[in-house]
Amino acid sequence: MKVLIIGATGTVGAAVSAALEPRHQLLRAGKTSGELQVDITDDASVTALFERVGRVDAIVSTVGKMHFGPLTDMTAQQFNIGLQDKLLGQIRIALIGQHYLNVGGSMTLTSGIVAHEPIRNGANASSVNAALEGFVRGAAIELAQGARINAVSPTVLTESLAAYGSSFPGFESVPATRVAQAYVRSVEGAQTGRVYNVW
Amino acid sequence: MKVLIIGATGTVGAAVSAALEPRHQLLRAGKTSGELQVDITDDASVTALFERVGRVDAIVSTVGKMHFGPLTDMTAQQFNIGLQDKLLGQIRIALIGQHYLNVGGSMTLTSGIVAHEPIRNGANASSVNAALEGFVRGAAIELAQGARINAVSPTVLTESLAAYGSSFPGFESVPATRVAQAYVRSVEGAQTGRVYNVW
Ligand SMILES: NC(=O)c1ccc[n+]([C@@H]2O[C@H](COP(=O)([O-])OP(=O)(O)OC[C@H]3O[C@@H](n4cnc5c(N)ncnc54)[C@H](OP(=O)(O)O)[C@@H]3O)[C@@H](O)[C@H]2O)c1
Ligand SMILES: NC(=O)c1ccc[n+]([C@@H]2O[C@H](COP(=O)([O-])OP(=O)(O)OC[C@H]3O[C@@H](n4cnc5c(N)ncnc54)[C@H](OP(=O)(O)O)[C@@H]3O)[C@@H](O)[C@H]2O)c1
Repeated sequence: MKVLIIGATGTVGAAVSAALEPRHQLLRAGKTSGELQVDITDDASVTALFERVGRVDAIVSTVGKMHFGPLTDMTAQQFNIGLQDKLLGQIRIALIGQHYLNVGGSMTLTSGIVAHEPIRNGANASSVNAALEGFVRGAAIELAQGARINAVSPTVLTESLAAYGSSFPGFESVPATRVAQAYVRSVEGAQTGRVYNVW
Repeated sequence: MKVLIIGATGTVGAAVSAALEPRHQLLRAGKTSGELQVDITDDASVTALFERVGRVDAIVSTVGKMHFGPLTDMTAQQFNIGLQDKLLGQIRIALIGQHYLNVGGSMTLTSGIVAHEPIRNGANASSVNAALEGFVRGAAIELAQGARINAVSPTVLTESLAAYGSSFPGFESVPATRVAQAYVRSVEGAQTGRVYNVW
């Protein structure tokens, strides 16, 4: 398959790329890194990426920024960061990308455990991740015949413990190689409208 | 209790008002109707409303616009309508409103069945409603001591069947009086972080 991975150079994306690489033709995109550049917050940039790569069999998105901070002084403007970046950014990939999918193609977005297991400073993340899961349920029943869409919801990665571990007290981490398998399941499997929890 | 209802003049809001009125002092807000005016998409307007009403024991939100339309020609800009109105509008009420709650006060937001039971043209609604539920889970663990937040998720109201019934084939509708009881449960009960499904 021809697989476009947006966020391919990140912690999650690199592991997904490594898992898919032996069997597929990968196109790796990042914001500043990777072989292709794209800004998921910009319609024109996402359209330009797809125009450049053409039709693909799978689109994988492992991107997205959110706002982390105490609820008690959070503003709507801060909350909107996650809505415009991780949420609408990935939805933009799906809304534009659906038109570049080969018959039977799939899209896989990235959610996260905080959708269902809240953490301190994580109200924006709980909302954004839950919204991505709702989108996948909604979009799955309306995509063109045979096209599929799923989400992967990882817990904190073992590789990210140094960076985020203190926000996840007592959460068991998972190695990136295990998280990557859920993306393989979405890309190479036949299900749609699913959220694969890796936790 | 002193209860502020934003969206009080709507189909859901009027039923909630009728259920709460016998036991509480109600302050009814709408965009153009009601005794108080507010625009939930505007920080200054929401802050002005709370400055005017002062501290309250409960805030109930029964508002919010979303985008309905086929996924296959949906744009990110259209998708953002629901993010900015029903989603961020209600979250703005909660982010600002938390600072005007009396000790032990509650906030109740409005989600909807489409979060979990997708319908045609409803990808934005599935995402927005799921996001509100995620927010409630996230916010509940961070609010000031004793403050509570819940969501009510109605299915289609019997009173709204003429307007939206064709979008909900085979869904059982519920009368507004039944939906209103879930808001009573949130306002007068003791739970937090809950989503009350009325379906
Ligand atoms: N790491 C975890 O423990 C964990 C757990 C659960 C969920 N997640 C989720 O998994 C996703 C990836 O996380 P990660 O830790 O792998 O992130 P990361 O290491 O920071 O990687 C982010 C990737 O996204 C790209 N990117 C950033 N902004 C972009 C933009 N505006 N347009 C296009 N590409 C952009 C980056 O490209 P450049 O390098 O060129 O900027 C990079 O390839 C996020 O949604 C995160 O919430 C992560
Ligand atoms: N009706 C249903 O079957 C159903 C089912 C599930 C979920 N819901 C949800 O329940 C909520 C209310 O639905 P509804 O059918 O009761 O709606 P509605 O009858 O259209 O009432 C909307 C209410 O919100 C107010 N409003 C609209 N825009 C506003 C803004 N920008 N700022 C402040 N107030 C604003 C309106 O005031 P004005 O009249 O002054 O404009 C009115 O009081 C929505 O979130 C909807 O998605 C409804």
